[in-house]
Amino acid sequence: MTFEEALKATAEAVEAELDDILPPAGDGAEGELAEALRYATLGGGKRVRPFMVVAGAEIFNVPKRNALRVGAAVELVHSYSLVHDDLPCMDDDALRRGQPTVHVKYDEATAVLVGDGLLSLAFEVLADEATTADPRARVELVHGLAQASGAHGMVGGQKIDLWAENERLDETQIIRLQRLKTGAMIAFAGEAGAILAGAEATSRQALRMYAHDLGLAFQIADDILDITGDTEELGKTAGKDVEQGKATFVTLLGLEGAKERAGMLAAQAVAHLEIFGERADALRALAEFVVARRS
Amino acid sequence: MTFEEALKATAEAVEAELDDILPPAGDGAEGELAEALRYATLGGGKRVRPFMVVAGAEIFNVPKRNALRVGAAVELVHSYSLVHDDLPCMDDDALRRGQPTVHVKYDEATAVLVGDGLLSLAFEVLADEATTADPRARVELVHGLAQASGAHGMVGGQKIDLWAENERLDETQIIRLQRLKTGAMIAFAGEAGAILAGAEATSRQALRMYAHDLGLAFQIADDILDITGDTEELGKTAGKDVEQGKATFVTLLGLEGAKERAGMLAAQAVAHLEIFGERADALRALAEFVVARRS
Repeated sequence: MTFEEALKATAEAVEAELDDILPPAGDGAEGELAEALRYATLGGGKRVRPFMVVAGAEIFNVPKRNALRVGAAVELVHSYSLVHDDLPCMDDDALRRGQPTVHVKYDEATAVLVGDGLLSLAFEVLADEATTADPRARVELVHGLAQASGAHGMVGGQKIDLWAENERLDETQIIRLQRLKTGAMIAFAGEAGAILAGAEATSRQALRMYAHDLGLAFQIADDILDITGDTEELGKTAGKDVEQGKATFVTLLGLEGAKERAGMLAAQAVAHLEIFGERADALRALAEFVVARRS
Repeated sequence: MTFEEALKATAEAVEAELDDILPPAGDGAEGELAEALRYATLGGGKRVRPFMVVAGAEIFNVPKRNALRVGAAVELVHSYSLVHDDLPCMDDDALRRGQPTVHVKYDEATAVLVGDGLLSLAFEVLADEATTADPRARVELVHGLAQASGAHGMVGGQKIDLWAENERLDETQIIRLQRLKTGAMIAFAGEAGAILAGAEATSRQALRMYAHDLGLAFQIADDILDITGDTEELGKTAGKDVEQGKATFVTLLGLEGAKERAGMLAAQAVAHLEIFGERADALRALAEFVVARRS
């Protein structure tokens, strides 16, 4: 199986898990809410974060089903963040994964509620004993996901991002922005398999550092694609950062400098995996993919 | 100590706990976010839900600090729900607890992020070992809070409430609305002390049923106050439901009928407490207070 096939297979398995977790669409207010929750979550994305969870869990022979549930929880949080970030009062985007965003398809109030509902659901999934029989692992997963989502993670990063519409960020600030907005969640996804397995601190730390470096490489690759990609291929509006006059890794380092930095970070990420031998090959292939992807 | 004094003392202790939990306000984007998180949460409300948690926990001699942390988590979720419900795309309210709402004081984007951040923080608090050393109790609390917050709880109720702006609800629908929007969280607050204590199923069920009945009485009392109260005393806009033409327990049952129903439910709530003897006196006094309150 090539890496692309493995990524696709995991994406399909996560999709099935999400389909199972989300409430069924139906009539009336609650049925419409369920439909919107499904619309926001299903049928899109490469599911890179869940792949990290699953590939990390495989190192420790964690049952696949458990890893998929944790991956699904991470993806619920990722989906919620996209729905709220796309709101008119935030980034005001009409297109996501090639489809109308939730507030365009439904309305703003529903989009706010969909995000809120997905966030709660993620914690419900992690806390459920179907995720793992071990309550200590479950509660550690909840703690990690909550930290990565909150004011010292994703929410704080989005606040800096809004701030950046009026302030020109320097490199330190833009790294801080990335570390909070996307890096914390990717670091959690990297470590989650080890938490699920109750692995010792050295392994947890190595996976966290791998994901930390790869998360930054991922963001730089995103900034490069915002310049070099096109809207159709990306499934979201290209050139948006430049249009809004935002500082990105490309404006700071130049296109070539950004590519070089992303490659360096991906190599650095892979170096943290040495202790796992060939059991971490899927994570190595992911690092290569992240900097080479075209969408 | 009178009941009002006990309620006030618990509110102050919860306030101190929240002050400790919330990040310090400061400069820059993250500092402003922290300031807004504090603005949304501190300095207001009777803290009825945390009182239920603390009074429930006292029945089982749970350490006060643990109960206060769970009470603070419940209040974080309650505060988040108020911030999002007040948004222009939702209930569009400019006044809350006698102060400008978060989106008026800051901006809409910050209000969305404040709600998101408070919700994640609530789960972080519950999952932290400072709440209780027992991981099983922590993970059960997370699960209960997530269910009460999500699409089958508060978020679902708010969706029905928005729907009700165009549809005239009947009594069954309005009870469903209340049960999801406010009832699920109150039921959780009632049961939380018993979860924290690892109490057996009979006790948990009795407290849950007490809180379930009291939650409905609380909502009916709210509907009555929306008619009979004034904006200054309530600290929020009075007469809003009537103005929006929404069906409430008062429009369905009449003012006298609603008062009678609230009293009946409060008595029914208290009946569930019999197994606890005088250890549940604080919860009995709360039931009396809920239907007699004037704001």
